[in-house]
Amino acid sequence: MTDVNLTLEDADALVMRVLRTNGCDEANARAVADTVMAAERDICHSHGIFRIPGYVASLRSGKVNGKAAPTVKQIAPGALQVDADRGFAPLALERGRQPLIDLAREQGIAALAVRDMHHFAALWVEVEPIAEAGLAAFAWTAATPMVAPAGGTKPLFGTNPMAFAWPRKDGSSMAFDMATAATARGEIMIMARDGKQAPPGAGIDAEGNPTTDPNAILAGAQLPFGGYKGSAISMMIELLVGALIGDKLSFEAGEADIKDGGPPPGGELIIAIDPNRFGDPDGWLAHGEKLFDAMKAQEGLRLPGERRHQNRLKTPSEGIFLPKSLYDTVCGLEA
Amino acid sequence: MTDVNLTLEDADALVMRVLRTNGCDEANARAVADTVMAAERDICHSHGIFRIPGYVASLRSGKVNGKAAPTVKQIAPGALQVDADRGFAPLALERGRQPLIDLAREQGIAALAVRDMHHFAALWVEVEPIAEAGLAAFAWTAATPMVAPAGGTKPLFGTNPMAFAWPRKDGSSMAFDMATAATARGEIMIMARDGKQAPPGAGIDAEGNPTTDPNAILAGAQLPFGGYKGSAISMMIELLVGALIGDKLSFEAGEADIKDGGPPPGGELIIAIDPNRFGDPDGWLAHGEKLFDAMKAQEGLRLPGERRHQNRLKTPSEGIFLPKSLYDTVCGLEA
Repeated sequence: MTDVNLTLEDADALVMRVLRTNGCDEANARAVADTVMAAERDICHSHGIFRIPGYVASLRSGKVNGKAAPTVKQIAPGALQVDADRGFAPLALERGRQPLIDLAREQGIAALAVRDMHHFAALWVEVEPIAEAGLAAFAWTAATPMVAPAGGTKPLFGTNPMAFAWPRKDGSSMAFDMATAATARGEIMIMARDGKQAPPGAGIDAEGNPTTDPNAILAGAQLPFGGYKGSAISMMIELLVGALIGDKLSFEAGEADIKDGGPPPGGELIIAIDPNRFGDPDGWLAHGEKLFDAMKAQEGLRLPGERRHQNRLKTPSEGIFLPKSLYDTVCGLEA
Repeated sequence: MTDVNLTLEDADALVMRVLRTNGCDEANARAVADTVMAAERDICHSHGIFRIPGYVASLRSGKVNGKAAPTVKQIAPGALQVDADRGFAPLALERGRQPLIDLAREQGIAALAVRDMHHFAALWVEVEPIAEAGLAAFAWTAATPMVAPAGGTKPLFGTNPMAFAWPRKDGSSMAFDMATAATARGEIMIMARDGKQAPPGAGIDAEGNPTTDPNAILAGAQLPFGGYKGSAISMMIELLVGALIGDKLSFEAGEADIKDGGPPPGGELIIAIDPNRFGDPDGWLAHGEKLFDAMKAQEGLRLPGERRHQNRLKTPSEGIFLPKSLYDTVCGLEA
């Protein structure tokens, strides 16, 4: 059975209809659809329409508030907090974004803590607009316990992604976004769906033995990337989005979650920095480009996110390709 | 030939004499010795007295100003900048530390950019005191080009360490400090000195071929930890301590350095965050401990830095053990 080819506009309209029908108000549907469609536009399937059944499950179970009205407040001269009102992350992040950008420009550096949200997306979508506004940005979030710390055998950390974005001279951005798990959960889910093997080092089974069976990993534990180093970074993210901002550690989220197939409850921390307020206001942009040029001078080297930016040029004319089974599933969620 | 056993006090006195004799004023000698002796106290040889010949080489060549008078200024409501006056990093960092702590408490989050310095130390020494003051802290610095980006063949990045520290309930801290290179440069230098092999994945030779010969790696390129993920983090650190703060990228530092065996010129960025200004002022400390307890409940798991803290309890009574050849070399630098 062939894939289904949809224009970005038609795919967006489908996503919007499904979200509205299942209890999202217009603002939440629009924010979630923008996030999902940014992934589809860049051909990042694991965070695109593939996630819609999970979003819908959490609306139908009542776990997530489809009509959430996130509110932003300033909690310190350099820090903002968004109460996400038990909604999906995208609207909360959208509401906090411009205030964060404004505050970072004023202060030099500022933080945005988002609490009481449900996150099911890629982080690059969230830091790219901040970099396109001329700021450097970090983002971190946690999840449910799926990753054993290096040296351990039981899930404790989330896949705990971190992202970083930096402004480019053409007004675009360089952004990377990595799970601190060796392999993104979404990719392992897709490997399981497609009957493929996971790469060695991706995880261990429920008894703690190494395995490349994606279903065994989903039932056991993923492993951090880079051994003890990636494990330390994952732990840092737990501290930042759990203890620091006053939301849930991954294992607390796992205990609180009703496991309806959608995103668990949790928080997110974003830090934005305005290079214009630091040491070289006139030169920093060209200085970053000098690094990128030196990287690209090495044959075969690509910048992080370069493939996404190339895909972004193609999908507006070529559309996207969805597996027929996924397309049928999502269409079935309209009812 | 056996190692030489010295008390911490005698080792400190030796280091101070060597630094003074070679052109450090009292403040700079004290700050460098404190940093070197913190590493010795925790039995981190690669950043301890092993570095003294390099420090001295840079004083003798005139590259580093042993009488540097670092100055701190506020460059934005949330950001400080230290002009290190072409000195070693420790005094510049010491001068910036309390102002950074004060500013982070006031603002919620604050950054310290140190420029025009020469860094030859471990970063955990620099973030632990900030965490002991009750704040979370990040630190990043770059170096000379020694690491090929993932997918590349030529040195471009430094070993670019990052550190993070978090306050503990007993007033101490959890700190990790990792080179984004697969293996710390100092460790490869020690492997070369001791005639040992480097682990697979540590680096490539001058022709770009994988090797475990530490001398071939020192002449070729190290590799980042964790493949493309570690490489992206290393790139991020270049942007932060080069372009953002207006100091040198690693390859610029390599061009500017006179290669006297001591530390290259460069910058450092530290970010401090006050959890008391975020979402859970009364609960964050216990919340962090809850994570640490869950980690330690997995058999065999240690927290980052735990071994250093154990060593710290031993060396005041047992002293430290220096290879005789290193001890003789350092004693020879008194003349």
